[in-house]
Amino acid sequence: MKPSICLLILLGVFSLSPFVAGSQPVKPIQLEKPGEGKGKTLMQALQERKSSREFSERPLSLPHLSELLWAANGINRADGKRTAPSAVNKQMVELYVVLPEGVYRYDAAASQLAPVVTGDFRRLAGVQEFVYTAPVNLVFVADFGKWKEGRIPPREDLIGMAAIETGCQVQNVYLYCASEGLATVIRASVNKEELANALGLTADQYIVAAQTVGYPK
Amino acid sequence: MKPSICLLILLGVFSLSPFVAGSQPVKPIQLEKPGEGKGKTLMQALQERKSSREFSERPLSLPHLSELLWAANGINRADGKRTAPSAVNKQMVELYVVLPEGVYRYDAAASQLAPVVTGDFRRLAGVQEFVYTAPVNLVFVADFGKWKEGRIPPREDLIGMAAIETGCQVQNVYLYCASEGLATVIRASVNKEELANALGLTADQYIVAAQTVGYPK
Repeated sequence: MKPSICLLILLGVFSLSPFVAGSQPVKPIQLEKPGEGKGKTLMQALQERKSSREFSERPLSLPHLSELLWAANGINRADGKRTAPSAVNKQMVELYVVLPEGVYRYDAAASQLAPVVTGDFRRLAGVQEFVYTAPVNLVFVADFGKWKEGRIPPREDLIGMAAIETGCQVQNVYLYCASEGLATVIRASVNKEELANALGLTADQYIVAAQTVGYPK
Repeated sequence: MKPSICLLILLGVFSLSPFVAGSQPVKPIQLEKPGEGKGKTLMQALQERKSSREFSERPLSLPHLSELLWAANGINRADGKRTAPSAVNKQMVELYVVLPEGVYRYDAAASQLAPVVTGDFRRLAGVQEFVYTAPVNLVFVADFGKWKEGRIPPREDLIGMAAIETGCQVQNVYLYCASEGLATVIRASVNKEELANALGLTADQYIVAAQTVGYPK
């Protein structure tokens, strides 16, 4: 085999894995376009929506992960607006994605997962056993810093708005999981302080809730 | 015409209208079963989800109203569980439905709208002009009284949970509207105190948000 072919194969292998061994920083994960016209009708998805707490450890496929995030809060219009509403279009609630190998931030515009920290942080993503073995834990993080210009709503209103926006994204995830036969459950129980420290969140960032996703056990 | 036929016609006319003239109490509205296998796929509904602020004054048809409410928070399982999640299954967030003729509470188990007050209360359901002419305004009301037994979460947590649950129902409404070509927008602006008084809400009941629904203008 010629050296140039070996190099191409090696590059190919590494491009399949977003991770480099050891303490090297995690690479971004490029997400795929969501499938059009696939899956169940909305009414069927509503009929089948439910919470499940039993997850296979099998990683989510890239198509499933990509569609899940787009469904949750992806861009669905040319002006950058999203599948879920946000007050005054501030897009205050961001999605952090806890995978076994690292934590990422969903960058809807670039359609990719931007690395935040390397390592398995599932222990900080919840208190129930299934959180530690499930392949995906979503963490909904509001950035109150987006309200620094103009009139700043009182904290109770900010929390209410952030939680409504989170609920909208959570329900998108529930319905996508119902449509695709995935398991999911929303959880209020998150080790907020420890997780915020691990992710390097600012004082303006507020963890609203978490949601576990995976294939059914 | 025989008197018995006249009576049947009269009964028929009155059964079409849930309202009795003047200050008589409003009658319940029996809702229809949601259509199965109809409408768009979930992915199409997500693609078309958006906020609209222009509404026709035309009343929503009974099938649309029935499906809208079932989608929002109807029963989708034999054990009484819903299309939207709720913390510890307390089903804390109830749906009040402001129609031009009166305000109703959505009774999912009975599949009907239970009358609360007679009259046009749209002026209290929001501050934007379209609220006063749109055919349907939903008001999401949390009952913190459902947490009186056992450990009572702090108010900030109660508001957060209520708002997440509201968001889930709000998004169901958004997606149903996208699937059926209806217009809708969530609104934080509600005359909370006046509306709570008008609806006879208790001190434990908390208005989380409102959402206007109708045919596009």
